[in-house]
Amino acid sequence: MRTLAAALLFAAIALPAQAQVKPDDAIRYRQSAFQVLVWNWAPMGAMVRGRVPFDAKAFTQGATRVQQISAMLLEGFPAGTEKGSLQTAAKPEIWRNQADFQKKMKDFEAAVGQLVTVARSGDEAAMKAQFAKTSESCKACHDRYKAD
Amino acid sequence: MRTLAAALLFAAIALPAQAQVKPDDAIRYRQSAFQVLVWNWAPMGAMVRGRVPFDAKAFTQGATRVQQISAMLLEGFPAGTEKGSLQTAAKPEIWRNQADFQKKMKDFEAAVGQLVTVARSGDEAAMKAQFAKTSESCKACHDRYKAD
Repeated sequence: MRTLAAALLFAAIALPAQAQVKPDDAIRYRQSAFQVLVWNWAPMGAMVRGRVPFDAKAFTQGATRVQQISAMLLEGFPAGTEKGSLQTAAKPEIWRNQADFQKKMKDFEAAVGQLVTVARSGDEAAMKAQFAKTSESCKACHDRYKAD
Repeated sequence: MRTLAAALLFAAIALPAQAQVKPDDAIRYRQSAFQVLVWNWAPMGAMVRGRVPFDAKAFTQGATRVQQISAMLLEGFPAGTEKGSLQTAAKPEIWRNQADFQKKMKDFEAAVGQLVTVARSGDEAAMKAQFAKTSESCKACHDRYKAD
């Protein structure tokens, strides 16, 4: 955590937007972004499946946060970050099929954007339907580009 | 990554908002949220320090994302998550001084909110000044509640 503190206060880590990104920094970043996404996504899934009571406000907040994170994902896969010293589930196919990978990420962003719109309408059935559609866009990308 | 995939698609992990959170899930979540924060914060610091050219648009995007993440931090420190099997730099004092800890987090959120406002104004000197103030609010919390 010393590294994190140093980076936070003195900007000592690699500079994603301006310089060559170290593979481990990108791997750590993208895995972190997905962790934050899942933290928000999982409780929404539990509501959709009826395991916990449906809470439209919590669902809308979750959708909004997933949308925010969705816009931060693509930058976690810059060229040259296929492999590092950290384990990664990102398949090399990502960098061989950039156009398709980016399209799938944009499809996910669009699906989540629609989920936020639907959530704000307050229509529970529509929220559940769009949640399922958004899950499919997760899966479409994972099936092709995620090893596990 | 199997766990992550399962959680993403089938909502199999602990449910943060609705149920008792497992310490390791909270530790992983909060560390991930800080990683995403730092990914955005570090390039802004490099601009403020003149290590890379100042880019008002990139700075504003960074500030906006840090603001989004800042609103997600506090939920990463629920009661009972002081210790898990994962290493954590969060000091037990966080849970002994909840009112102060929450105030410091809210101070940080407010400072970042102000940073976004200033960034939108396009005044480079004001952005740099508010960046420094925001860094101080990071440090105020780290000094007391973060071990490293």
